[in-house]
Amino acid sequence: MTESVNLNGNERIDQLYSQDIKIIQSSEVFSFSLDAVLLANFAKLKASPKVKIMDLCAGNGAVGLFASQKTKGQIFQIELQAKLADMGKRSIELNGLQNQVHMVNMDLADTFRKFEKDTFDFVLCNPPYFKNQIASKKNPNPYLAVARHEIKTNLDQVLETSAGLLKMNGKLYLVHRPDRFSEIMASLARHRLAPKKIRLVYPRQHSEANMVLIEAIKDGRKGGMRFVEPLYTYEGKEYSTEVKGLLYGRKKS
Amino acid sequence: MTESVNLNGNERIDQLYSQDIKIIQSSEVFSFSLDAVLLANFAKLKASPKVKIMDLCAGNGAVGLFASQKTKGQIFQIELQAKLADMGKRSIELNGLQNQVHMVNMDLADTFRKFEKDTFDFVLCNPPYFKNQIASKKNPNPYLAVARHEIKTNLDQVLETSAGLLKMNGKLYLVHRPDRFSEIMASLARHRLAPKKIRLVYPRQHSEANMVLIEAIKDGRKGGMRFVEPLYTYEGKEYSTEVKGLLYGRKKS
Repeated sequence: MTESVNLNGNERIDQLYSQDIKIIQSSEVFSFSLDAVLLANFAKLKASPKVKIMDLCAGNGAVGLFASQKTKGQIFQIELQAKLADMGKRSIELNGLQNQVHMVNMDLADTFRKFEKDTFDFVLCNPPYFKNQIASKKNPNPYLAVARHEIKTNLDQVLETSAGLLKMNGKLYLVHRPDRFSEIMASLARHRLAPKKIRLVYPRQHSEANMVLIEAIKDGRKGGMRFVEPLYTYEGKEYSTEVKGLLYGRKKS
Repeated sequence: MTESVNLNGNERIDQLYSQDIKIIQSSEVFSFSLDAVLLANFAKLKASPKVKIMDLCAGNGAVGLFASQKTKGQIFQIELQAKLADMGKRSIELNGLQNQVHMVNMDLADTFRKFEKDTFDFVLCNPPYFKNQIASKKNPNPYLAVARHEIKTNLDQVLETSAGLLKMNGKLYLVHRPDRFSEIMASLARHRLAPKKIRLVYPRQHSEANMVLIEAIKDGRKGGMRFVEPLYTYEGKEYSTEVKGLLYGRKKS
């Protein structure tokens, strides 16, 4: 570790061995999951320093931090929860990325008070997955509840905000749950986002998908949707070769 | 062959070895493809003789004929093209299924002149896949052109008709192309059909899906969409074990 950083109680520093990125985590507040790794990997970002990238519902900043390894573009992050945004800010410092990655602690409902519309090339988003229904079993931990359940925002607001941020032909990369897929498709259509590329994630062979990665283009032509090869998380009891590569690194080609 | 049947020029009788069904085919007019086999296999039909099943855009009747092996219900088939409907009728006789399968040569635009609304438990449909655009390369063979291109009908009309036929909670089983998927989702939503179960068909590992099987429920609750395990058509240069089972039969369990 070249940079020093203050850790609060119960925080730890994790590293994704496939990338030279360290991330401050806390099982009591928030830790990134495989979803963030898969989303950052799925996103095809331009390398140019001129591109602007937004990481919405950024949590502790994992998606944007991973994405920083794929582009020289400017990455902005919006996170509602002060504790999570603060972890993200310290991770940015820990990695010496202050000139590239910028965490903003704010409600995404206020996005356009700070950011101009139609100015982003890419939006990445790992939003809360679960509907805020009375019947749903929310996490008793309030930080995790807000991160996972649609308590402070919802799918339609997230996609409306994403569409507002993107330039024409800008790309949204979203990770979500398959059981929300029809709602996602309807909301994308409402907000001028054309789904183009879908990758389904299956825990293992012969099982149902438990995650979906979506690329959508703002004002893209309708039709031409592609389902690219499935991703399997496990092979037997081990991570699959592809997931191992993402987590632990693979031989440089 | 127990029943005798007249064959027109260039017609042949094919049999799916996994099923005791013979089908009159003609490479000059129409022959069923793997799509029909996969659709009939994907459909979960009730066995009861009381259920009513519609096979829309029936072609030479393959889907309905295969489906007759899974249910004792009454199966109706609508096919626009007289030559194809006639092949279908003779296949029904060839298999001695006149009391169960009923081919009607008509335009699906006239469906409700003959069939009552809200009376079917299941609709199966393998519709024309390709948009009727001037730029699209249509098949020079007029029979195949109508079967494959949206010349005489289109996706929205097919789904509107399917929804009209189905009882509340009746199920539609559709096979189509992934590149039309977002249009399919929008049209299903317009016609009170909730997509529930999706199975993607990939030609082989590491390739993109080239077919999609969709189960939708009329007036079904939104949400709860499932992507079940992918189906691979080939393993190396051979059909996959699953497809071989569907085409050539598998050991009875």
